[in-house]
Amino acid sequence: MHDRSARTRGIALTERQRIAWLRLIRSDNVGPVTFRELINHFGSAETALEMLPELSRRGGASRVIRVASQAEAERELDLADRHGATFVGIGEPDYPPLLRQIVGAPPLLAVKGNLNVASAPAVGIVGARNASISGMKFAGLLAREIGRAGYSIVSGLARGIDTAAHRASLDTGTIAAMAGGLDKPYPPENIGLLGEMTDGQGLAISEMPFGWEPRARDFPRRNRLIAGMALGLVVVEAAVRSGSLITARNAADFGRLVFAVPGSPLDMRCEGTNGLLKDGATITTTADDVLESLRPLSEPDLFTPRPHAGEPPEDTPPALRLPPSDGERERIAEALSQVPAEIDEVIRHTGIAAATVYLVLLELDLAGRLQRHGNGGVSLTPE
Amino acid sequence: MHDRSARTRGIALTERQRIAWLRLIRSDNVGPVTFRELINHFGSAETALEMLPELSRRGGASRVIRVASQAEAERELDLADRHGATFVGIGEPDYPPLLRQIVGAPPLLAVKGNLNVASAPAVGIVGARNASISGMKFAGLLAREIGRAGYSIVSGLARGIDTAAHRASLDTGTIAAMAGGLDKPYPPENIGLLGEMTDGQGLAISEMPFGWEPRARDFPRRNRLIAGMALGLVVVEAAVRSGSLITARNAADFGRLVFAVPGSPLDMRCEGTNGLLKDGATITTTADDVLESLRPLSEPDLFTPRPHAGEPPEDTPPALRLPPSDGERERIAEALSQVPAEIDEVIRHTGIAAATVYLVLLELDLAGRLQRHGNGGVSLTPE
Repeated sequence: MHDRSARTRGIALTERQRIAWLRLIRSDNVGPVTFRELINHFGSAETALEMLPELSRRGGASRVIRVASQAEAERELDLADRHGATFVGIGEPDYPPLLRQIVGAPPLLAVKGNLNVASAPAVGIVGARNASISGMKFAGLLAREIGRAGYSIVSGLARGIDTAAHRASLDTGTIAAMAGGLDKPYPPENIGLLGEMTDGQGLAISEMPFGWEPRARDFPRRNRLIAGMALGLVVVEAAVRSGSLITARNAADFGRLVFAVPGSPLDMRCEGTNGLLKDGATITTTADDVLESLRPLSEPDLFTPRPHAGEPPEDTPPALRLPPSDGERERIAEALSQVPAEIDEVIRHTGIAAATVYLVLLELDLAGRLQRHGNGGVSLTPE
Repeated sequence: MHDRSARTRGIALTERQRIAWLRLIRSDNVGPVTFRELINHFGSAETALEMLPELSRRGGASRVIRVASQAEAERELDLADRHGATFVGIGEPDYPPLLRQIVGAPPLLAVKGNLNVASAPAVGIVGARNASISGMKFAGLLAREIGRAGYSIVSGLARGIDTAAHRASLDTGTIAAMAGGLDKPYPPENIGLLGEMTDGQGLAISEMPFGWEPRARDFPRRNRLIAGMALGLVVVEAAVRSGSLITARNAADFGRLVFAVPGSPLDMRCEGTNGLLKDGATITTTADDVLESLRPLSEPDLFTPRPHAGEPPEDTPPALRLPPSDGERERIAEALSQVPAEIDEVIRHTGIAAATVYLVLLELDLAGRLQRHGNGGVSLTPE
């Protein structure tokens, strides 16, 4: 099941590219989607970095955006190195293969531990922090059996179900997606478990720099990483309006299978999972329920990187274009509102060439005036 | 929701017919299906009673079958009367309307208590005898809310879930289907609950005579009564291979909705219910889950008796037919085996007129040589 040949696929970044990628993703107003747009437009992170101030100025930024310096990126790489961590780019062989398929996949992941587990097909197991004894026991049982069947177990290193799932898959391969930096587990008490993972058959991943304390708003992105890495996601005990349900929603949006463990209607910790079952999640009372559903999806070709995922080799000429005219810029800005519209609609509505529309949107984005939505829509940031 | 006009539908039996029906169903080798065949053939129970010895002799009975006497039937009616019970025939207005639609519906039911609850749409609630506290609590909660919504609650008067369901619907209308006689509750400790039911808004029903101690083999028939009366059946806690799952299977076979309450995969008492969910039962964590599914099915016209359910008024000439020839009887017996065949196949295979085939099958049936199967098939009884 674990397809070793996948590790030889993909294109490794040069060190120079890696530094440019890190600078670009750490610069103001550059998120994963904007990052990809910039690479698509300018052919490389280095060229994009050169264009950033000019683009944001053209987009109407009130002040020049901060571009991460070469020195900062080198310091972050050094720090990672001293922690025994590295950065993996989205087109590289060690990048989790399913994660690269989601909208907004991080261009660079800080990773620490055994990278082999990232290329195995993965199953997410998440759930309540205040889990019941029986819920933790069952999460462990699932993680153990699904792990033995050749899957990596992905979870969020939280208390309760997450902890039980990681612990039970320490020997077979477990991946923690973290909301803060790799040195900032939440809850802090899980620092020991994190060490056991990264010293053994486990892997920890994060989008954030070392030293980053996770804030509430970082957890939804962590949840997307879990859902994005997993072929299927199992929710074991979850209250209504819990993070686990957001992860399940993400998984469903990514076209991944969602499994839920049933529980008593009188236990609040099962309201979320029972609700998922009502919405069509696969009822899970044994590891086989998961394994049998996943078997047809675990074919090796799913783990092939998609061709557009990486950056072309350094010598490819960047696809530079003339800047848009002020008139074009104005028409595009007028076509937008705070109600999301699809980019294709903007192109049709304005009659301006697609490449130009994309570039103007990039400018607005870097100026902090554009919001990008999960489905590819764009809207203006409320003033 | 409770359609009072249903009570005015159907045709009441005369006292003479009622005695004849009771004699016929209490005679040897006459079950509900054979009873219906006999009425269809001979037009009335009285004529069928006259024909019984002759039919069974022609069918090859080794000894003449016992026909219940007029005196016996009168004694049973007297006994019922002294217990405050009556007998309701399948075509009569007080017969539970959905029960009359199932194959093998009892032609006569002994009933005691408030007959109004039989004509309301009903929901079955059944489950484990060794139920958990939480399971009993939830069964009570469902019964209370579904009862308040206008449904009668049907169950089996067993320990555990059944008891909780009956108790919680004492005020709104509850029906106990019993495996033994109306004076023989199982477990015996539920005699008090039974009394509370029949003295108040409850009803007890049984196919069996007063004084009949329920045996293990009587419970599957009791389960069919529960499933047959209910528009939907809710299973709350059930182990694998439990009676509640048989009731659920019956309900599904009758085209009724099956609901199951989810529970922990680590609790044996939830294996059966979780299994039902895997098989497509509707997950139930609130009474509304049941009520919303049933609403479109609770239209009054479902509660109209089907025209063929009763016996025509006494003066209708019975459809007597000439006895089959020995040759025909032999060809039909030869066409049968211990492997069930459909009656239409027997007709096609032998080329004998349908009416004659049905009559020969009745003879064999009454002689104890024929077995009838749920799907309308027939086979020879192993010698």
